[in-house]
Amino acid sequence: MRTLYHLPLDPPCRAIRILLGEKRLPFALKTENVWEGRESFLQLNPAGAVPVLVDEDGTSIPGARVIAEYLDEVYPEPPLIGGTPADRAETRRLVDWFDGKFQREVSAGLIEEKVTRRLRQQGEPNAAAIRNALAGIHYHLDYIAWLCDRRRWLAGDDFSLADVTAAAHISAVDYLGDVPWGDHLGAKDWYARVKSRPSLRPILADRIHGATPAAHYADPDF
Amino acid sequence: MRTLYHLPLDPPCRAIRILLGEKRLPFALKTENVWEGRESFLQLNPAGAVPVLVDEDGTSIPGARVIAEYLDEVYPEPPLIGGTPADRAETRRLVDWFDGKFQREVSAGLIEEKVTRRLRQQGEPNAAAIRNALAGIHYHLDYIAWLCDRRRWLAGDDFSLADVTAAAHISAVDYLGDVPWGDHLGAKDWYARVKSRPSLRPILADRIHGATPAAHYADPDF
Repeated sequence: MRTLYHLPLDPPCRAIRILLGEKRLPFALKTENVWEGRESFLQLNPAGAVPVLVDEDGTSIPGARVIAEYLDEVYPEPPLIGGTPADRAETRRLVDWFDGKFQREVSAGLIEEKVTRRLRQQGEPNAAAIRNALAGIHYHLDYIAWLCDRRRWLAGDDFSLADVTAAAHISAVDYLGDVPWGDHLGAKDWYARVKSRPSLRPILADRIHGATPAAHYADPDF
Repeated sequence: MRTLYHLPLDPPCRAIRILLGEKRLPFALKTENVWEGRESFLQLNPAGAVPVLVDEDGTSIPGARVIAEYLDEVYPEPPLIGGTPADRAETRRLVDWFDGKFQREVSAGLIEEKVTRRLRQQGEPNAAAIRNALAGIHYHLDYIAWLCDRRRWLAGDDFSLADVTAAAHISAVDYLGDVPWGDHLGAKDWYARVKSRPSLRPILADRIHGATPAAHYADPDF
């Protein structure tokens, strides 16, 4: 059985769950508390991080971007990194935007401070980091709206890995109730369209121990 | 003319210079002081970071991993992300290792603290960050040797983007004289083979204003 080692609120892990859903590939989900440094997990990924996908033939693939490229090569339908080389570059640019810039400026400050730190028993959250992340998210929601004014989906006219990656981050922050939707109707329209896809259902059903989701988290009319 | 916007000691920028050299693609090099936030550069890459490649047809591609995938698609000879999907995943895993883990644990602590901070006039280097990076590099050099005990090059029997990315990081740290070669003969053997490639010559000719390279920096017999 294809297996994904993950953490439920980790955005890159969420991206691979959505991606596997888009490609209709069945898989088992195993939660890996990476901070425990489990020996047999380090054999799958010496970097000790999730996500790691073990495919049906036993091939072990670590890292969200690596897994996404692998899945799009081995299971090309529907393509999530498609089109011309320039189109594909635009999709990958936005994947880097969300897994790099959004991760540093928003996700890290909210998810790591509010959730991961408690799971790892690393003490009190850093209030300044949380404040910076809450301030930083506006710019990114504006950017989503700006892109969707010009294109049907974030990287072009087709739903792509850019939407998957952005939705993975936004959904994790939205679980915590930290997306100011009222100020960002353009981004909200995009996320409503993403949320209605069957691939999002398992993500929206997540309930993390000790962290209750925002009331509207799973609601398609939020 | 194909143009690469870069910073000379930035490892991802060095990786693209080496990659363009491997593919024998001519290009002009422009230094971009990203901290100045130049408007026309932000139009090329709204994330405001280097490297950015502007190809001959005007296509603008930001980010080392995005550029590398684009170049390997548009100019496939010689392939730098080649082989089966599993081989390609192994190459990309090691690219992530060096641009992610090595960057955080080694390059950031040395290059940002010793060079970038001064260029940006951000005050004195953080001595603890430098110490941690100098301690952290041993593990990575051991890992290079471990891989080369099992394979001809880092990701397999062919020179690949994994070697390019690792060499980009190692060469930048070696410029500063911070690679403890005497303790790591396996990694040294790999780097000597990389250093002898014509694609490395422009990198080894770099001289950064205000930072003299280590005496052995450009020497093939270091």
